[in-house]
Amino acid sequence: MNRLTVGLVGYGNVGSGVVKFLQNRRDYFKDKFNTEFVLKTICDRSIHAKKITGLEKTRLTTNIAEILNDRAIEVIVELVGGMHPAKEIIIGALKNNKHVVTANKELLANCGEELLKLTHHYKRNIYFESSVGAGIPVIKTITEGVAGNKFHSLYGIINGTCNFILSEMTKNAYSFKQALEEAQKRGFAESNPTLDINGMDSAHKLAILVYLGLGKFIKLKDIHTEGITHISPVDIEHAESLNLTIKLLAIAKKDPNNEIEARVHPTLIPKDHPLATVSGIYNAIFLGTYPLGHILLSGEGAGQMSAASGIISDLLHLASRSHSDAPSMLGNLVYENPNLKIKKIDQIRTKFYLRFMAVDKPGVLSQITGILGKHGISIDSVTQKAQHTSIAPIIMLTDYAPEKMVRLALDKIHKLPIVNSRPVAIRMEKLR
Amino acid sequence: MNRLTVGLVGYGNVGSGVVKFLQNRRDYFKDKFNTEFVLKTICDRSIHAKKITGLEKTRLTTNIAEILNDRAIEVIVELVGGMHPAKEIIIGALKNNKHVVTANKELLANCGEELLKLTHHYKRNIYFESSVGAGIPVIKTITEGVAGNKFHSLYGIINGTCNFILSEMTKNAYSFKQALEEAQKRGFAESNPTLDINGMDSAHKLAILVYLGLGKFIKLKDIHTEGITHISPVDIEHAESLNLTIKLLAIAKKDPNNEIEARVHPTLIPKDHPLATVSGIYNAIFLGTYPLGHILLSGEGAGQMSAASGIISDLLHLASRSHSDAPSMLGNLVYENPNLKIKKIDQIRTKFYLRFMAVDKPGVLSQITGILGKHGISIDSVTQKAQHTSIAPIIMLTDYAPEKMVRLALDKIHKLPIVNSRPVAIRMEKLR
Repeated sequence: MNRLTVGLVGYGNVGSGVVKFLQNRRDYFKDKFNTEFVLKTICDRSIHAKKITGLEKTRLTTNIAEILNDRAIEVIVELVGGMHPAKEIIIGALKNNKHVVTANKELLANCGEELLKLTHHYKRNIYFESSVGAGIPVIKTITEGVAGNKFHSLYGIINGTCNFILSEMTKNAYSFKQALEEAQKRGFAESNPTLDINGMDSAHKLAILVYLGLGKFIKLKDIHTEGITHISPVDIEHAESLNLTIKLLAIAKKDPNNEIEARVHPTLIPKDHPLATVSGIYNAIFLGTYPLGHILLSGEGAGQMSAASGIISDLLHLASRSHSDAPSMLGNLVYENPNLKIKKIDQIRTKFYLRFMAVDKPGVLSQITGILGKHGISIDSVTQKAQHTSIAPIIMLTDYAPEKMVRLALDKIHKLPIVNSRPVAIRMEKLR
Repeated sequence: MNRLTVGLVGYGNVGSGVVKFLQNRRDYFKDKFNTEFVLKTICDRSIHAKKITGLEKTRLTTNIAEILNDRAIEVIVELVGGMHPAKEIIIGALKNNKHVVTANKELLANCGEELLKLTHHYKRNIYFESSVGAGIPVIKTITEGVAGNKFHSLYGIINGTCNFILSEMTKNAYSFKQALEEAQKRGFAESNPTLDINGMDSAHKLAILVYLGLGKFIKLKDIHTEGITHISPVDIEHAESLNLTIKLLAIAKKDPNNEIEARVHPTLIPKDHPLATVSGIYNAIFLGTYPLGHILLSGEGAGQMSAASGIISDLLHLASRSHSDAPSMLGNLVYENPNLKIKKIDQIRTKFYLRFMAVDKPGVLSQITGILGKHGISIDSVTQKAQHTSIAPIIMLTDYAPEKMVRLALDKIHKLPIVNSRPVAIRMEKLR
């Protein structure tokens, strides 16, 4: 029987889910995995205010030293979240010869390189399946499932809140505000949803995926990040009529010159692509690998038991390896491909959906297309619907164009007297 | 550096893909996985007739004993396929202290219990990722990715040939025969496609999944298996108009009484379900797990490099564990849930799509519904389109009904003078 002694730090929603999972599956883990988890200590700053049952043998404390200094504890599960004191707790655990399981995407995105090198230095393992897509085995698929393949692209719907909001806007013609309220009412958005809706949460997760999939530690400032707050029902409606769907995608690509681009933004994708069918709080990741080809993985990427499920699978992995020198996951976690460079967003070429709200009179179209043409931007299609109003939307789909030129052209078009408001630009992806 | 000495048995399409993969990624495996594979010997009965380059250090032989009796070889990759001599080769390898990597679904479906118990006995590992969905990490997802979860359902599109044929029939209104010819022309069907189109290949794979996911060794005779040869364009057309799609699904479910059903048959599924968008040679698996919920995994489930990719990921796993006592995969591979029973197909309740070709005159509908009613089969909807011909199709969707009663009722209806041909019955699934 493998026995693994665990210290849990942070007893919130996910932490209590992990405890429930450990309690309910005790016999199954013994029978099937030959493993017994001993939950020796739980540390939480308000542990004594919480209702906890069935944990008579577990020490409950507010003092993290009771975990860090306990030599019997072999692994800590860090569910405090955020940068501090989570970082200090993890480093303390490694220094004290403990393995680490964490779901802390913000910390890994900001300090992943430092922490992974520390695990290497201290010969301890770190697992973090629940940091991306909660219990959907995104990380194990990349690091183990398709080990040996090379990755050239990675498209993720990895924020359930945003995906729910966009799905509601599409399904019910809600405004962004209405859809956000619905998400909050149903518990799918926090009362302060900033990190979700501004795209930062997706950027955190993308930083982790870029490292694991493409082999490069990337700084958050090198991930171009846009949220979904500016998406309006009119664009969703136009997208529908073009057989497209708007999703907040986290995108990373490696080109043949070994240049990496990484970005998070609302993206128009074909309605018949499998990612387009991933709606509500579901998450998905679409990986371009060589030579295996594309694979898609989707599931419930949020929620107490989904996150707990990822933690449990990490613990089971640890238990099977903790008494050997086998490294955490497959492969060298601090391996970085020395040839990779990061591309700046200015250099990236994509296709765009553009919407201009312009005065409905002759000559308007030629002024707009004239400016686009001067910036080298070709137009694939134009839709201008008679609205019987003085201001009418003009929708254009462009060919591939450099980000920088599109931005310059839109600034110029915005200054035209015939244009009523800031042009809307949403990038398009073919997902191949 | 981990060094793993490999003997390859069977140098066909997949075998040569594995060799190519090993050659092309030698440096990457060293840098990233700290692993070197030494391909010491290849055995194939027609090895000397094959064009092989770049393998100067590899011994080429037609004599399997040169691998089995070579104590330096730590793992054999068995790509012979079929029952014999593959079984004897694998057993010989285990007895000679070697690990095994195989893609042999037929052998695993028929003798999985025996072989897994032997690996346990000899304390050797067996990996078989490529046996289901080729390189798509179906098996690692079930055994490792979501380890700790319980499975209650499992729906797979796991035969690329059948999925391609049904997709072509749907897209191009081809007959079965036309679609099969197209598949053969494009290399997606063998010249003798029997095992694919009669559903047996899917049943082999399902047997493996039932064991890994639901914890029960199931005999092939307990998997009700139907192929796709009787699917006709008229049913595909009716399905379309009902917003349904026909897929050959491998299905396994565990009910709250711990009874398992396992079956392979053409199935009508909702068009907006993610599995419905999996077309062509793509494979997919939709897993119902607790508490994680549903997850979907899809990708290219056939082809030389996809299969080779699964073998390579198995070899990398083995390399990381071969020098420890860690078991193959997570968990006890010979664990069987003692409480599970197998349900007979007669006891299974599903909804049905029924098509009757009947004389177009008054009273026909009441004769048919009368017989269905007497057998306790409720009708959810009826469609009868005026065809201006003497024989017209009547389409009925039933409520849940026991398989046995449906079969009895259809036999009776078939005998009615007003019914022109054998009624068509296709099961429906909601996929939840």
